[in-house]
Amino acid sequence: MRSPQVEAASGLPEQVTIYEVGPRDGLQNEKTVVPAATKVEFIRRLEAAGLGTIETTSFVPARWVPQMGDAEDVLAGLGPDGRGRRRPALVPNERGLDRAEELGLTAIAIFGSATETFAQKNLNRSVSEQYAMFEPVVERALADGMWVRAYVSMCFGDPWEGPVPVGQVVDTAERLMDLGCHELSLGDTIGVGTTGHVHRLLEALGARGIGTDRVAVHFHDTYGQALANTMAALRDGVSVVDAAAGGLGGCPYAKSATGNLATEDLVWALHGAGVETGVDLEALVETSVWMAGQLGRPSPSNVVRALAGA
Amino acid sequence: MRSPQVEAASGLPEQVTIYEVGPRDGLQNEKTVVPAATKVEFIRRLEAAGLGTIETTSFVPARWVPQMGDAEDVLAGLGPDGRGRRRPALVPNERGLDRAEELGLTAIAIFGSATETFAQKNLNRSVSEQYAMFEPVVERALADGMWVRAYVSMCFGDPWEGPVPVGQVVDTAERLMDLGCHELSLGDTIGVGTTGHVHRLLEALGARGIGTDRVAVHFHDTYGQALANTMAALRDGVSVVDAAAGGLGGCPYAKSATGNLATEDLVWALHGAGVETGVDLEALVETSVWMAGQLGRPSPSNVVRALAGA
Repeated sequence: MRSPQVEAASGLPEQVTIYEVGPRDGLQNEKTVVPAATKVEFIRRLEAAGLGTIETTSFVPARWVPQMGDAEDVLAGLGPDGRGRRRPALVPNERGLDRAEELGLTAIAIFGSATETFAQKNLNRSVSEQYAMFEPVVERALADGMWVRAYVSMCFGDPWEGPVPVGQVVDTAERLMDLGCHELSLGDTIGVGTTGHVHRLLEALGARGIGTDRVAVHFHDTYGQALANTMAALRDGVSVVDAAAGGLGGCPYAKSATGNLATEDLVWALHGAGVETGVDLEALVETSVWMAGQLGRPSPSNVVRALAGA
Repeated sequence: MRSPQVEAASGLPEQVTIYEVGPRDGLQNEKTVVPAATKVEFIRRLEAAGLGTIETTSFVPARWVPQMGDAEDVLAGLGPDGRGRRRPALVPNERGLDRAEELGLTAIAIFGSATETFAQKNLNRSVSEQYAMFEPVVERALADGMWVRAYVSMCFGDPWEGPVPVGQVVDTAERLMDLGCHELSLGDTIGVGTTGHVHRLLEALGARGIGTDRVAVHFHDTYGQALANTMAALRDGVSVVDAAAGGLGGCPYAKSATGNLATEDLVWALHGAGVETGVDLEALVETSVWMAGQLGRPSPSNVVRALAGA
């Protein structure tokens, strides 16, 4: 139940931290709304499979994202952070931060956009206005000792604006990181990026002082590029990768598959290359098969299908 | 309709030759048996989309592979080679070579196995006996001026034997190439390989004098690794890649997806990296959508689903 020929592959980091986004980015983009108790069990099973960082939910208003309307129930069900685990949640504003702090969270993520159109659609603000929105959130979170991640969406292409210039992404990333965030996650929200583009973006960020030690990558598999792009980023020094158990977020029967990189496919690649992740692949596959059952459809992850079908 | 941010990516070849295997490896592994006339139209459409090398069929006995029992009809329907196109077919023995030559073929492929179990199952011979089987085929084909490719199957893992040692693959490859074949195709028949393993195999082949200028790679996407492995091989100097239009050979609804790397997903990655392929992606996607209709199910290629659904 593991990839053959385990060995150290040249150019890859010895250890990779998987930032599991299945319960949030994954379930947020599934048609089926999953009950809070199921989410709690999902997160507990993911933690038991060795995933130490799991994005649990989102404190956006429920009218924006009904799938995440049960943030309080999910976090109350999980109980407090502990044993070295990190359970960040998305926080758009100070009201969201209030709720996160009341529930004892110690890690949050803000989510900016590199493009005007998506900033308007997702945040109801312009790109330049988003910084003012996030500034008081990050300032208070840092003062309260929280760990803060900054997402940038649409880092490669935008469905309305087309290809997104590297300089535009770097400007957005710099503004958000200047707020004091600990980690930057580069989101290929529509999955159109390719390896050379990944390299050039990382290079441009490095030139502005945002090194790969502070950068995570977040690829969607819409065009089948997620794992290839991730491996390219790892060779460039990135060591934090976003992925969703079972490739959640994209239904294999939908016309357009838009799921996240499947955590299992990533783990297969990393373990085969001798890179440590701390993940028990068998337990993870079992969890994704169980979750697919809750959603009433098979997992889009190739590894899940191959191992669960074997 | 193309990947954004076209640019030259460091470490990739300027040009990649796609060796299209959809009509043979793809259709051979589909449940639906496609009529010869449909195959002819498929191949013609692939050629019109810019694919210059297409593996058309196989001259194994029809009782072994019923899906390829119409080799004569397909090749007669296509007419003679021409205009710089290459239409190789699999040839297992001298009887197969007779048939290929009668139909005017100028390129063939033999197909060895790196493992004993698969050699017995696929060729009814041991690994060492396979060389004697292929030797007269290659000798006569070369004497007749044909181009000859040697496949090696099970280069990374074998479903019965597990991980396959690199040395065992190199030994098999060397014996087949010593017959005088022009090109070696490394097959990850069950799709379990990972990037470090690819690198080590290419390195070991190079050390025996089989350089990347004579090596093609052939990945199946069973574990989601096909494109990442292909890109790793390209960075190591390989410039011929096997792929199947639409990811043929694996049904997205089957428990275990075992299709080839989808040509469209490969083209997306290469064009995004500024690598020339000569392929018209739009025409290729249209062809795969048409073929999926013939097979009565959607294409497993992410790019096909994303572009055709848009």
